[in-house]
Amino acid sequence: MFKENESKESGFRVALPDALDNVRFNEQGLIPVIAQQHDSNEVLMMAWMNRPALEETLETGQVCYYSRSRGALWRKGESSGQVQALVELRIDCDGDTLLLKVNQKGAACHTGRRDCFFWKADGDSLVLDKDTIVNPDTLYQKLP
Amino acid sequence: MFKENESKESGFRVALPDALDNVRFNEQGLIPVIAQQHDSNEVLMMAWMNRPALEETLETGQVCYYSRSRGALWRKGESSGQVQALVELRIDCDGDTLLLKVNQKGAACHTGRRDCFFWKADGDSLVLDKDTIVNPDTLYQKLP
Repeated sequence: MFKENESKESGFRVALPDALDNVRFNEQGLIPVIAQQHDSNEVLMMAWMNRPALEETLETGQVCYYSRSRGALWRKGESSGQVQALVELRIDCDGDTLLLKVNQKGAACHTGRRDCFFWKADGDSLVLDKDTIVNPDTLYQKLP
Repeated sequence: MFKENESKESGFRVALPDALDNVRFNEQGLIPVIAQQHDSNEVLMMAWMNRPALEETLETGQVCYYSRSRGALWRKGESSGQVQALVELRIDCDGDTLLLKVNQKGAACHTGRRDCFFWKADGDSLVLDKDTIVNPDTLYQKLP
């Protein structure tokens, strides 16, 4: 569906359920997801969704990923309170990557930093160049 | 290395070769890479690198991916002329995703659009909302 319609002009529409049937999840049933703050355009994090996570995100407007380490749906912020509200959901040309514009409350990163990309290549070294905005020790006290 | 140093403060440095040894490539030896236009912050595309692609990108300052379909290094723009100059390279908290700030010449997408994320969820449909900026028929005439 994505390939066959890639030369259409803007305004062309397909039914969302048909589109979801054509999303190209990988062998593990997952698709990479980029989360971008909707107003500043900063890239916050990259995570994964399976189809139920994608459907829940569209239905609720609250971003839900799939945690590969836990093997379960991961409702972003359910433990930490650092939720992501969905503003816009986009799919790429190949139908195998999602871009989410979100409104991130507080810190997207489990370390308490605003975003996860705090290591920057700088000459012969890699420098950590962002500090926490939330104390990470306080983020996960609500975990069971 | 990434996990054990995540609570360090900004300014902390590690040697780049040591960091590269700790990048977490997946079972196929690949890492997902987000390309973001350095000045506008628009997300252009998502692709993959293996370690040689990452090293070449750092050495040359021209972005080189790994093409999963061709099973070979993919020097972005080598056929199309739509090259990406590296401005900044970042690694995330887990050491398993790269964020590249680039200067994209022309169209990042093989369809001739500026970026690959031209399908937007809109109510019950998915709408194509970006047009080409380069005629895709002219992009790949330099292919052998």
